[in-house]
Amino acid sequence: MVYAPVLNEPGLPPIRINLLSDTQTRPSAAMRQAMAAAEVGDEQMGDDPTVTSLCQRVAALLGKEAAVFMPSGTMCNVAATLVHCRPGDEILAHDTAHLVALEGGAHAAFGGVQVKPLHGAHGQFAPELFRAALRPATRNQPRQTLVSVEQTANLGGGAVWKLSALEAIVEIAKANGLATHMDGARLLNACVATGISARAMAAGWDSVWLDFSKGLGAPLGAVLAGSRGFIDEVWRWKQRLGGAMRQAGICAAACHYALDHNVARLAEDHGNARALAAGLAKIPGIDVQPPETNMVFFDTGGAGLPSEAMVAALRRRGILACVMAGRIRTCTHLDVSAAMIAETLQAVGEILQAAVEPAVLSSPAPRRSVS
Amino acid sequence: MVYAPVLNEPGLPPIRINLLSDTQTRPSAAMRQAMAAAEVGDEQMGDDPTVTSLCQRVAALLGKEAAVFMPSGTMCNVAATLVHCRPGDEILAHDTAHLVALEGGAHAAFGGVQVKPLHGAHGQFAPELFRAALRPATRNQPRQTLVSVEQTANLGGGAVWKLSALEAIVEIAKANGLATHMDGARLLNACVATGISARAMAAGWDSVWLDFSKGLGAPLGAVLAGSRGFIDEVWRWKQRLGGAMRQAGICAAACHYALDHNVARLAEDHGNARALAAGLAKIPGIDVQPPETNMVFFDTGGAGLPSEAMVAALRRRGILACVMAGRIRTCTHLDVSAAMIAETLQAVGEILQAAVEPAVLSSPAPRRSVS
Amino acid sequence: MVYAPVLNEPGLPPIRINLLSDTQTRPSAAMRQAMAAAEVGDEQMGDDPTVTSLCQRVAALLGKEAAVFMPSGTMCNVAATLVHCRPGDEILAHDTAHLVALEGGAHAAFGGVQVKPLHGAHGQFAPELFRAALRPATRNQPRQTLVSVEQTANLGGGAVWKLSALEAIVEIAKANGLATHMDGARLLNACVATGISARAMAAGWDSVWLDFSKGLGAPLGAVLAGSRGFIDEVWRWKQRLGGAMRQAGICAAACHYALDHNVARLAEDHGNARALAAGLAKIPGIDVQPPETNMVFFDTGGAGLPSEAMVAALRRRGILACVMAGRIRTCTHLDVSAAMIAETLQAVGEILQAAVEPAVLSSPAPRRSVS
Amino acid sequence: MVYAPVLNEPGLPPIRINLLSDTQTRPSAAMRQAMAAAEVGDEQMGDDPTVTSLCQRVAALLGKEAAVFMPSGTMCNVAATLVHCRPGDEILAHDTAHLVALEGGAHAAFGGVQVKPLHGAHGQFAPELFRAALRPATRNQPRQTLVSVEQTANLGGGAVWKLSALEAIVEIAKANGLATHMDGARLLNACVATGISARAMAAGWDSVWLDFSKGLGAPLGAVLAGSRGFIDEVWRWKQRLGGAMRQAGICAAACHYALDHNVARLAEDHGNARALAAGLAKIPGIDVQPPETNMVFFDTGGAGLPSEAMVAALRRRGILACVMAGRIRTCTHLDVSAAMIAETLQAVGEILQAAVEPAVLSSPAPRRSVS
Repeated sequence: MVYAPVLNEPGLPPIRINLLSDTQTRPSAAMRQAMAAAEVGDEQMGDDPTVTSLCQRVAALLGKEAAVFMPSGTMCNVAATLVHCRPGDEILAHDTAHLVALEGGAHAAFGGVQVKPLHGAHGQFAPELFRAALRPATRNQPRQTLVSVEQTANLGGGAVWKLSALEAIVEIAKANGLATHMDGARLLNACVATGISARAMAAGWDSVWLDFSKGLGAPLGAVLAGSRGFIDEVWRWKQRLGGAMRQAGICAAACHYALDHNVARLAEDHGNARALAAGLAKIPGIDVQPPETNMVFFDTGGAGLPSEAMVAALRRRGILACVMAGRIRTCTHLDVSAAMIAETLQAVGEILQAAVEPAVLSSPAPRRSVS
Repeated sequence: MVYAPVLNEPGLPPIRINLLSDTQTRPSAAMRQAMAAAEVGDEQMGDDPTVTSLCQRVAALLGKEAAVFMPSGTMCNVAATLVHCRPGDEILAHDTAHLVALEGGAHAAFGGVQVKPLHGAHGQFAPELFRAALRPATRNQPRQTLVSVEQTANLGGGAVWKLSALEAIVEIAKANGLATHMDGARLLNACVATGISARAMAAGWDSVWLDFSKGLGAPLGAVLAGSRGFIDEVWRWKQRLGGAMRQAGICAAACHYALDHNVARLAEDHGNARALAAGLAKIPGIDVQPPETNMVFFDTGGAGLPSEAMVAALRRRGILACVMAGRIRTCTHLDVSAAMIAETLQAVGEILQAAVEPAVLSSPAPRRSVS
Repeated sequence: MVYAPVLNEPGLPPIRINLLSDTQTRPSAAMRQAMAAAEVGDEQMGDDPTVTSLCQRVAALLGKEAAVFMPSGTMCNVAATLVHCRPGDEILAHDTAHLVALEGGAHAAFGGVQVKPLHGAHGQFAPELFRAALRPATRNQPRQTLVSVEQTANLGGGAVWKLSALEAIVEIAKANGLATHMDGARLLNACVATGISARAMAAGWDSVWLDFSKGLGAPLGAVLAGSRGFIDEVWRWKQRLGGAMRQAGICAAACHYALDHNVARLAEDHGNARALAAGLAKIPGIDVQPPETNMVFFDTGGAGLPSEAMVAALRRRGILACVMAGRIRTCTHLDVSAAMIAETLQAVGEILQAAVEPAVLSSPAPRRSVS
Repeated sequence: MVYAPVLNEPGLPPIRINLLSDTQTRPSAAMRQAMAAAEVGDEQMGDDPTVTSLCQRVAALLGKEAAVFMPSGTMCNVAATLVHCRPGDEILAHDTAHLVALEGGAHAAFGGVQVKPLHGAHGQFAPELFRAALRPATRNQPRQTLVSVEQTANLGGGAVWKLSALEAIVEIAKANGLATHMDGARLLNACVATGISARAMAAGWDSVWLDFSKGLGAPLGAVLAGSRGFIDEVWRWKQRLGGAMRQAGICAAACHYALDHNVARLAEDHGNARALAAGLAKIPGIDVQPPETNMVFFDTGGAGLPSEAMVAALRRRGILACVMAGRIRTCTHLDVSAAMIAETLQAVGEILQAAVEPAVLSSPAPRRSVS
């Protein structure tokens, strides 16, 4: 599902334009200074003041009672499942959701939970499809206890779940006794793109998390929010999973900095994505999914060059992208400027012009995991 | 997915024609005598001679080195997964397969295994769809280690997997390092219907099992076969699952009897199913799936009566059927005669004629689990 | 922990006296006739009348609301854990309990549950030791949710838990929010030995089960009892574990027969065990644990012959026993008469007399699993 | 097992002397600068140069082929189990080991693994006890696949496993096909205390890890080392557990700094611990375990004041300690000076003198989790 050329390989030029993922953002000098100055304590004992204030801040942002700091978004997804579900339960989620496709089967491995994958365009399923997939409560069918959405839908092209769809899913879930979980890795991208508040997006969802290591530019960390009772139970799983840390305030300080400085500017990333998509759409034969946030998925096969070959050729020019689920994925973020978008567009055009030359179709670079 | 009226409820007549499932068969007097006369020992210690000879017999029938007796087919599926897979692995199987839909999420609960459901008509997926669903070996995607088919496909209408499809799936699996498992709950129905031997059907499948409690008419028991090393490992899981028994030769004797007397006669069940389907197809508006073995799935909605109402009305006449996945499922077996088929057809016709009367559409009976 | 010579090996005489385990009992002709005549239905659907009446009978015997039929006692233990506990929970049980030592780690494998083994003589722990092992409710310590006892304690020499100890454990458990489980594989032996009713023994225990395949002489089967809500949840796990069967009334009929005919006679087994122990105690150097029920554990090392060698020599005379946890275990049951006890005592004496001859100390036979 | 007063509660003075745990160390200004200056990349993709060089450095230090960075030591323990063991397997470890007592049952919860707790003084078990606990390979006993030691033994008072004991355990393990795991949370304390290299201590152990958030003074992080194949498999579990991070080089830089500056100085902590123990031993009635590294366990009950009351009284003077397993645990580390030790000794003496006054025995503060 994912293919990416190596980042730094002998004979390849340095990477100048990194469109691989918004996880590639590096902490700025100002963010690093905020980290170095952080007041810290023992996070595992609940005594790191910077972590504590970050959790309170995110809980308020999402309209939840409490929150907990985690080393990664995957741990947020896994811990939420472990609290919401018991072994033998079934989660309903989109077939391309991160928890189904990119977490190594962790929900089954740790939680004993089966996933019922739902289908639909752009990583989203229709609320009615969800309703139709509900199983009756018999002894021999999996018990369905959780529905999960990913906002925005990464493998869906960064598409934004509409508020009305979120509300419809919550309503069906509640009517049928299911808990609701939102993987909000890029929730703030959805909020900036739509003007809808995070609190409104998260309303009715029993557990919601934000990732700080993506477009927000922090080196690591995610915060999972929910009711006080839910977070108490999450803490037990955080301990078991090895997510309880010590002076984690150093990392939480970067997240505070990101909330202060890097949210509104996500609009720039979205603008850059639109510019890239508009430019690509002008090139005959390229199939581009119109971006809603900071990702542009496109396919160059129709323009005469398979997507894998395009990615390899871009890498030789110092531009990094990858192929996901058959299409090229490019991601805009803090470290990508409008000028870089222009240069990328020019590079794509030149590569396609040169594509008659067979040398371009060299051997593919080794696979990498990206998310 | 499954709806069935209660079997014996106050005010309802006794059940005279039981088309609910081939699991409803009752041991005949001759089978009971074979059981009563069985030589027995301690099965858990490998010392029950009747169980031992049954396992050798089934292993030979399926062309495998060894076999083990189990209290149910579900335990065969679960134990096979536990040997073939480790937590975090992924199984590829049809979305409607018994192990996905009717085993309570046991494979995730006990094995920590995720299922990647494949789609396709009649409970079968195309070999090419299987190939397309293979994931690359990255760090963050589930590791795929097993492909499973169900012969015949129960929720697929009792449809028979073609030998060429089975062979193509084995070839793809082996080329990609996956183990292969066949849920052969009704494998002998497929063999009788096609004239292909069980050994040929099972060739290339690492684990295969037969169920004796369905059309073969034994009260309980299934036998799982595979390589000697595989069966040695299955034994550990049989102990853990609570499937190791004591003087189980009593039950195994019924299975021997079934192999001696009840295999060839499955052709009668298939004939009865064809007769039922042919009769139903003549009634305007009924949508019938042409049967390949001993099941007839049909929908009476187009004839003016929802399937649930038809099932309820049949029950009031002493005829038992159920609704599965939106359609009426009827099953022929040892205890269903040609005369009963004729009576059932007549009843369906009469019920549809009377369906203008609203009284037929009474409240549905409570749900039951059937498989 | 367990060593047993093979049952039937070339060159060895047939087994005439089987003291290996009370699991070795074979159904009598009268029991077989009761089985052959059983009224049956589909047990998995709750419609087997003989299974239903057996469950009601055992529930009443144990003073519980409901019960469920299982193919084995191990499945009763496993299913009870799966209902009482969630992954990460901890069970307190004796270090030599069946669920710790002889179920292949199933409780961890399926339930994700850790066991805190308690210690004490004769397979029993003091209530105060249980209290002292309780952990405070912190985030990083396992949550303790269940205490389990085994009545009688198999590896404790068939010792009987005193009613006062059972009551004290229940009291501590309830005061600390733990559920209580009794592995009653040989509970009726304890009742017959003490004159205390099963209902009194089971009072306060949330889940209790009886095994019918041991001294009661049925070929297979166990019945697990508890509250209605508990049994409803057990049913889901019974399905997942593969313990849901079809015309299981055949087997349940043997259990009914056992309750009718084989309970009071357990006193004979206890008498035979006392006679065996008394005879052994007269032989200088033999260390015998005074039997409370139907097991005699002894060690012949002090009499000049290691226990393994004694077991091998007995086998060569057609007498079967085994070594468990370093001592010889002999079990009396339905198929062991007073005359056999006398013959066994004579054989032990003769073997010790001959033990100066080195030929007796031949190579040990292969290990076997016994419980 | 663990009791600690709250760190910062209204009405309590600020903590001036923090003996609670070496996890309480805070990063120094120099360490913070090293972090702020770190070169970073995407750790999850293997492209963070600071993480990569730290892993290479630790692998070399421990004499292993490869290593991986983790957010915590608990994750090292859990991931190692998940690679070494399959569900139903059994680990042998000391009853008070971190993985048994302080990881929330995670090894059972995630790995389906049972623990066989071994006993012995100072958190250590005799190699012969380990050998005696090995089970034969029968079908119904747990399969033993891993032995684990904790160097130093935290709940054993910071005691150091002797090299000869480590070697004897490795020899028994290898002879019986078990893998070997060393929880080296405080391995470098053992090395500094004994003068034995980490490489020699780790020789023969298949997996070993160091924790940087304890006496080494980094805010978070641990590194797990082993063979290349082992680390490849660990990576899959790191992803599933949510331990794969992004620009983790910020944190790894602190670990590099710790290896450069904070290893040899552990000798100071050990000297402070000896001084504290020597002073306490002079106070009549106090029972002190002679320290081998940086922990001092003692009991003031014999001196007239229960340990819990002593801890509460110390807290009211701004000195933080805790009660673990019934004794007071004090930990020396980077942020504890010789003067603080002297002040602590004086405080203990004064509190005992005043202990005749009942006011000291106020209500206990709430429990906290410490490790």
